[in-house]
Order: sequence, then structure tokens, then C-alpha cells
Amino acid sequence: MVDVSHANAESVRRMIAARPVLTAVERASGTIPGMHDRLLLHAGPPIAWERMSGPLRGAVVGALLYERIATDEQEAARIAGSGEIEFSPCHDHAAVGPMAGVISPSMAVYVIEERTDGGRAYSTLNEGYGRVLRYGAYAPEVLERLRWMNEVMAPILAEALTLAGGIDLRTLLAEALHMGDEGHNRNKAGSLLFLKQLSPLIARLRIDPEDRARVLTFLGDNALSVLNPVMAACKAMADAAHGVEGSTIVTAMARNGTDFGIRVSGLGAEWFTAPAQTPDGLYFSGFSHSNANPDIGDSTITETAGIGAFAMAAAPAIVRFVSGTPGDAVNATLEMYEITAAEHEHFTIPALDFRGSPTGIDIRRVIELGITPRINTGIAHREAGVGQIGAGLVRPPLEIFERALTAFAERHGI
Amino acid sequence: MVDVSHANAESVRRMIAARPVLTAVERASGTIPGMHDRLLLHAGPPIAWERMSGPLRGAVVGALLYERIATDEQEAARIAGSGEIEFSPCHDHAAVGPMAGVISPSMAVYVIEERTDGGRAYSTLNEGYGRVLRYGAYAPEVLERLRWMNEVMAPILAEALTLAGGIDLRTLLAEALHMGDEGHNRNKAGSLLFLKQLSPLIARLRIDPEDRARVLTFLGDNALSVLNPVMAACKAMADAAHGVEGSTIVTAMARNGTDFGIRVSGLGAEWFTAPAQTPDGLYFSGFSHSNANPDIGDSTITETAGIGAFAMAAAPAIVRFVSGTPGDAVNATLEMYEITAAEHEHFTIPALDFRGSPTGIDIRRVIELGITPRINTGIAHREAGVGQIGAGLVRPPLEIFERALTAFAERHGI
Repeated sequence: MVDVSHANAESVRRMIAARPVLTAVERASGTIPGMHDRLLLHAGPPIAWERMSGPLRGAVVGALLYERIATDEQEAARIAGSGEIEFSPCHDHAAVGPMAGVISPSMAVYVIEERTDGGRAYSTLNEGYGRVLRYGAYAPEVLERLRWMNEVMAPILAEALTLAGGIDLRTLLAEALHMGDEGHNRNKAGSLLFLKQLSPLIARLRIDPEDRARVLTFLGDNALSVLNPVMAACKAMADAAHGVEGSTIVTAMARNGTDFGIRVSGLGAEWFTAPAQTPDGLYFSGFSHSNANPDIGDSTITETAGIGAFAMAAAPAIVRFVSGTPGDAVNATLEMYEITAAEHEHFTIPALDFRGSPTGIDIRRVIELGITPRINTGIAHREAGVGQIGAGLVRPPLEIFERALTAFAERHGI
Repeated sequence: MVDVSHANAESVRRMIAARPVLTAVERASGTIPGMHDRLLLHAGPPIAWERMSGPLRGAVVGALLYERIATDEQEAARIAGSGEIEFSPCHDHAAVGPMAGVISPSMAVYVIEERTDGGRAYSTLNEGYGRVLRYGAYAPEVLERLRWMNEVMAPILAEALTLAGGIDLRTLLAEALHMGDEGHNRNKAGSLLFLKQLSPLIARLRIDPEDRARVLTFLGDNALSVLNPVMAACKAMADAAHGVEGSTIVTAMARNGTDFGIRVSGLGAEWFTAPAQTPDGLYFSGFSHSNANPDIGDSTITETAGIGAFAMAAAPAIVRFVSGTPGDAVNATLEMYEITAAEHEHFTIPALDFRGSPTGIDIRRVIELGITPRINTGIAHREAGVGQIGAGLVRPPLEIFERALTAFAERHGI
């Protein structure tokens, strides 16, 4: 008889003990396992071009233009649907990406080393706000920004990180949670802590002064600068918890804009999927729920690792962005204790008397209580090329937890 | 008959409408009104050398060594007691200083311009932690750091601020209160927001790369970097509220390590003083309450302007530093609503449903309810030369409010 509680305790222990350190910025091709010239990674579980939603298609088009595989939108769409391009989830390549999450071969990626058990994780550089590839925009300004990020900023970050000798992201996150961040949709403090570590190193570089200044302005003005390395850090923590036989702990939650998928520690590489729901939240002027794409992005790796909506009690100011009241934010965290196996040792919430954040979703409890994980999220326009239209709250469909639990029962003959 | 409520509303309206902008770094001599070669400014109400406490004497000794008016401690003490040196409160020169608050002629000072009604305020650069002048230390390392700050860092900050065109400190504080700061003993987020604005400007300067890096490291590693400009900003806000005939609003609270003094909007330049109390709090290893100096510093200008302990509900993590629980921090703010005339329009507290921070202490309410203002504070060793030994909580003596109210009644023949 499988000892699920024991397996879960071990899985969560590994998740919490993991120590992700940001060590480098490198080119995806040559760094991300399995990356090749005709491979595009995307957020969420596997999906073919035909079933992709607007923002994911937009990001694919943008990536093909960025890689100069296509010269215009029509050609890009044709190539994407032709079979010439392989699509694969970021998660299957130790990577994660916010929203559409598209990673193409020549993009620069952050490299996270997990220092407790080993392991690596990857994410792209964050583009900031407005019209950006991750929300499915691919206008010339989007591609131009990507070129500057990957050709000018990335080498500067790479050199600074070499001088830094690594940035401990677990420590950074722990501090950010004491500064009103929840680590997913609010990374304001974390991004400044990131800037604090990088700024003296960048200031020291003997390069064009305008490049130094532009990189520091870009990092400082983008309150999501650290989101991508944080997501990769959470991926490293979740991966550390993966593969414990008999464990019912969730080790990945991810959406591709069409389907929501989860993976479970004791159930190998299998995705349990169902149609993604559409978030509720606050919309930018001129947009409404009817414009919203279903839930998209790998950023739910934060909730998987015990932060994001799970640590929302630490971030009362976020409700101005995702809707609700500060009381709702506290209740979100309190509810998540019901479905998690542990309280985080390093991620603590001052307003809850420094209680550890609820960590390690147990699919048994989700089913038993009928409580699905809470998620904070950005909201993308459902059409390709538009971009972000708001931010809000969403939950995964309950049936994927039922499906996973059924698979678990079958595996163990329960 | 004087309309006190009307006068108080006007006083607090001016305090809240004030918009302090950090515009420059200049040399105290030539900038601070009345500064001259043999003048030392200090925190709190007026005091002669003979009655100064250990940390204030230590800072005076340090300043005389720094100015090369004396060559050793004995000579400095002799000169300080000889009558050759004039001592005057920072507050009488539109300035404020943390802890001992000593400002000498050749020190660099931040210049705050109040953009609503005009007016200026000044403060020195923050030294960081450990053995520092403001806690009464004057060892060679203290003087060496002061020389580096004033000779290397100050010109760099001055040039960066010129490029910046001013940093709006009201906006910065409003944001910091949403990031777990209370603006007095916790300025972690505010200091990073300050760094964010300065770092691209400093990175652009064509100076020694090591100087660029050292300044950014010094600012970034010091979570009190922005405390001094914040104090000067609060001084500018409080000064805007001063001088409203018939107002019982407190416009200065300050301690010199011996006496606690307040000024009241409708009572001119008069200080109402009584012996300062000794803070309760958490002590660094090896120190206890018996080593603590009575309350010292102008930093209570933060509470005077509606932040600091008054906004402690915004900063639950601060209790690890000043003692108490996050619940106590919320209660501190709630209690301060009892003795204040307004809720701040710009400084809001997410955890209290974005309620404005309690602003504008009314001496009538203090007396009526017997509730004195709450103050967060650093704790200095009572002997000169030692430095900080902890941080904690304190209140002013009730009798200074009684004395002020009596003076108010006499002035208005009540």
C-alpha cells in the first residue's frame, strides 16, 4: 500500500529545500535542452497550431518574424501551419514563459541553477508592458524591442551576472513577500531588489553610457523585470518536488490559452488537461470580459510553488490591479491552506504573523473539498496582435484534478 | 472666539497639499539659512553642551573632528564646552537630522523644495548602519566614511539629481507605503525606489566606474538611504501646516536625547519640552534597556506628517525590528486616528482598505483622551562613541501637550 502522506511530505520537503540561483543569461539555442532551429516553445500543455488561441498564434507569428523565418504575418501563419515548425511546451524543456510563453532559438534566456539537488530552469527576459510578444503582439515595435533586449541588454545582463556570482532568488522572493509582493502579478519589490543587485555591476561595465542607463531604466521601470527569473526559480523548485512515487502533489500548472494542464509528482510526465477558463478581473479602458482570451501562461508555476495567489495575503495592494478587497486577498491565502500539504519555511507572510505560505497542492484535498487552486493572472485579448487588456483571478477546471486522481488510483490499484 | 476646528482643517489641508520634491545636493554652508563656520545644528529642541546626552556629545565631537576644528576627542570636548561653538536646533534652520542630527558647515545636504506653497527643507546624507556619527560614534572609520560621502558621493548625487529634474518624494512615499514601509524605521522599499530613479542617471556619468559602482552599492545596501530626504520632505509638509492662527495641530516633534519638544501650528516658534523617555524595543546582542539613551532625533517629523508609527499598519514586517506583533502594528495606526484631525489623501494603507494614514496630531485630542503619539525609533547607546544598540517604540511625555494646550488657552483667553 502506497504511503501517500509520506510521499507528499518528501515531495514538499524537496520543493521547499530547493535553492534556485540565477547564474547566467545565455542564448536559448545551445542552452535549453532539445532547442533547435525549427522549434518554438510555448506555455501550457502540448497544442497544435490549429487549436491555438489568438494570443498564442500572435506570439508564434511574432517569433517567426523575429527569427526571420517569415517576412510577414501571412507567411508566418502559413509556415506555422505547414508542419515545418515543431511546437513543444516550455515545461518539457525545463523552461517556463509568461502568457504565450513563446521561446525561439535565438532569444536570450535566464539560467537558474538549483543548488540543493541540482537541476536547471530557463526563462526569457521580460519585455515590460504594452504591446509585447507574450500577449500576442507582433508589431514592428515589439520585434524592435525584442532585438534590443536580446542583442544589447542580454550581453550586459550576462556580464553583470558573471560578476555577481549568482543571485539567490529564494532569498529575493522571501524579502519581496515582506514588501507587498506576491511574486506573480505583483513583483514590484522583487524587481527593485533585482535592480539593486545588478545596478552596481552594470554601472561598472566599460560600455556605452547610454546602454548602461537604458538597461537600468528598462529594468527599473518594469515592475515585472524579475517575473521571468522568479518563474524559472519556481519551476526549479517544482521540478525538485517532481517524480516522488506515490505523491499526489501538483508539480506543474500551466495554460496554453486553450487548455489548462497539470502534472503531478507521482504521475510522471503526463498532462491532465481540460479547457481553460476565462479570468475575471479588472479591464483596461475600452475592454471587457467579452474580449478576454481563456487563461494562458506558465506563470501559474508561482502558485504551484506556494507564492502568487497563494501568498496574496502578503500583497494587499494587488487588489487594485486584479480586483477584490484586501480582505479577499487574506482569504485567498487562508483558503489555500486547505488544499496544500505544507507551510513554506522561507516564504512567510507578515500579516499572518509570519506564517509560511501554503505550499504543495495535494490533488486529494482539491477533490475532497472541491476547492481548486486560486490564480492571479494577466488577461490577454482573444485576438492575435492586440495584447494585454487587464488582470484578474481565475481557477483551473476541477475535472483535471479528478482525472489525475483517477490515474493515481489506477496506478496504485486503489 | 477662535474657530479651532476651522484652523486645524486649514493647517492639515496645507500639510497634505504640500508637495516636497528633492532637487539638489549642496554644501550646508551657503545653503542652510544661518549656517556659519562655528555653528553646529543638532536634533531636537535647543540644548547647551552641558546638558547634552552621550550620543549627542559624541556626534558633536565627531563633527568638530570632521571639520578639523579639533584634532582629538579631548580638544573637541573642550572647544564644544568653551562657548566658541554655537549650537542650534536643525528645526530652527529648516533642517532635520536623524538621531543626534548633527549638521556641520561642510557637510552635504539634500535640498527639498515644497512645490505647493514654496519653502525648502534640508537633511544630511544617510550614513548607513554600524558605527555612525548620528548614533554618536566618531572613530576614524566614521570620519572616513563621512569624507567619502561628502567629497565623492555628494557631487555624484548632485549631478544625478540635476539630470533627474527632481524626485517627487510624496509620490515615492505613497508607493513605499504600499510596499511594506512605514517611512521612518522601515524605508526599505522607499530606498529602492530612490535607487531606481538615481541608478540610470549615475550609470550615465562619465566618472571612475568604481565610484559609480560604490555609490550604487552604498545606496542600495542601505535600507535607510531615503530616510534623510524623507525626513526633510516631512519637515517641508509640517512647515506648510505651521503658522495657522488658532490651530492646535502639532508641526514638530523632536528630541535631543535629553528633552522631547513639540511645536504647534498656532503657537509660533515656541518649543514645549520635558525630559525624553527611554524607548522599549529589541536590542542587539550584548545590549539591554539599561544601556539605552533617552529618545533622540528629529525623525519624529515622520509621525508629525502622518507616517512612521502612524502608518505602521502598512508595515507588518517592521515588528521583527521594533518588537510587537503585526496585530500591534495595525492597532498602532488605529489608535492614532483617535488623536489626528485628518486621513491623508496621498498616503494610504492597503491593509486598512486603503484608508488614508492618520495625519495631523491635535493637542486637544491628545489631552482629552490621554493618548500620546506613537513613535518608532532607533535606540542609541547612552555613552558617546558606541552607536546603535537596538530599535523600538516610544511616546512623548504627556505634559508637553498639556503645557502647549495651556499656552494655547492663554493666547486665546479661553
